[in-house]
Amino acid sequence: MKPEGARARLAALGFGARDVELLFEHFDDAERRGKLGHGHARIEWLETQRPDPAATPVKTSAEGVDRWESRGAVGYLLLSAICADVLEEPRPLRLVAADAFPTGHLGYWARRLARGGLVALLTATSPPRLAHPDGGDPLVGTNPLAIGLPSADGVPLVVDVSMAKATYGDVLAGRARPEDVIPFGGEQAHKAFALAVGLQGLVEAFLGDRHGVFLLAAEPAVADFPRELRRRAAGLHLPGDA
Amino acid sequence: MKPEGARARLAALGFGARDVELLFEHFDDAERRGKLGHGHARIEWLETQRPDPAATPVKTSAEGVDRWESRGAVGYLLLSAICADVLEEPRPLRLVAADAFPTGHLGYWARRLARGGLVALLTATSPPRLAHPDGGDPLVGTNPLAIGLPSADGVPLVVDVSMAKATYGDVLAGRARPEDVIPFGGEQAHKAFALAVGLQGLVEAFLGDRHGVFLLAAEPAVADFPRELRRRAAGLHLPGDA
Repeated sequence: MKPEGARARLAALGFGARDVELLFEHFDDAERRGKLGHGHARIEWLETQRPDPAATPVKTSAEGVDRWESRGAVGYLLLSAICADVLEEPRPLRLVAADAFPTGHLGYWARRLARGGLVALLTATSPPRLAHPDGGDPLVGTNPLAIGLPSADGVPLVVDVSMAKATYGDVLAGRARPEDVIPFGGEQAHKAFALAVGLQGLVEAFLGDRHGVFLLAAEPAVADFPRELRRRAAGLHLPGDA
Repeated sequence: MKPEGARARLAALGFGARDVELLFEHFDDAERRGKLGHGHARIEWLETQRPDPAATPVKTSAEGVDRWESRGAVGYLLLSAICADVLEEPRPLRLVAADAFPTGHLGYWARRLARGGLVALLTATSPPRLAHPDGGDPLVGTNPLAIGLPSADGVPLVVDVSMAKATYGDVLAGRARPEDVIPFGGEQAHKAFALAVGLQGLVEAFLGDRHGVFLLAAEPAVADFPRELRRRAAGLHLPGDA
């Protein structure tokens, strides 16, 4: 999909110019990074979702945990608003919970916060898609965990791992079969399943039985690890690096 | 190892009665849960480490992040002191960083906090033992992630996942070979490696280049997820359950 075509399709959904740009930038970043399940294919998917382009997310509380409500806004725009808010008003430590869906590739948001100097730990739940490795119905989402780390060398280190062998986005992008949406790890799939369970519980402890995100953003004491790891890795490809 | 023998060996290391009990309880809980790498075998290992039984950890700061220094105390006792402190003085939200080593099976501490009504996310770094899936020297620790969730049914749900196929503790317990201390996941080992990298960076962002723990403890809004998941799982074994 060409950029102008992508923007035109987002605009045709009713989104204003600023939101079109925010959405396009997210999908295009995914596309460039080869995360095709969160890339341009999502524009077509979004067209099937009838999103409300006029919906505006709101921060409803900042006591202990910052709480946001999507009020029907698409998750991408809610996450964007949260990142802007967190970066605008720095605090040593902040937790955020919000009923965001869909949330895209979480590394994008973690990188944005890390570029702004914050350590970010971000997870998101989605409809139940992962069954227990021993069988049964899907119990938890694919629940990615992203960690963004500011770096003394100026290039954040960003980890973004889905607990699924193949994500639902991969299925949407035609790169995986629905039956590959299982916990990753083969004979140790119980580990990825356990992580998905823990992350689901973490989100639901703050949000209740809704899909959403949980974000921890904090000011780091030091930012040497990414640079040192890159040095020690001596050219091996590290998570999230180009 | 019989309980009295275990306690006697810990006392012979110079630990006072209270610390003997704290240590024994940790090792014995691991043993009962089948986590033998963190069980009684660790008493023998501890004997080789010449721990300082008189060392006392201290909280050096509570600005934004609670910071603790082990001052040479074994990690188990530092973690125990941190849990006691967190439970004693509840706050809606707390981060803790400490140079704790060794830290044992993290699920134990997460469960203790969850029993006290707090959601806990706890990770710990250790000496580099995991190499990049493409090869090279070990770059990061096996870096387990534990998540403890209070439950409306009174039984916390506790997840505790090491990023290694076999942990160093498994090797110590004679249950795994050193060459199995690699990221778990088989052909998707890059995922577990990435998680280990992210968690290592999270700890080092607060601690610098030392081994230690990073803890998030927060008051949940709701505690329905564990009970609901158990109901939906319909008897399948869930992480951390007996």
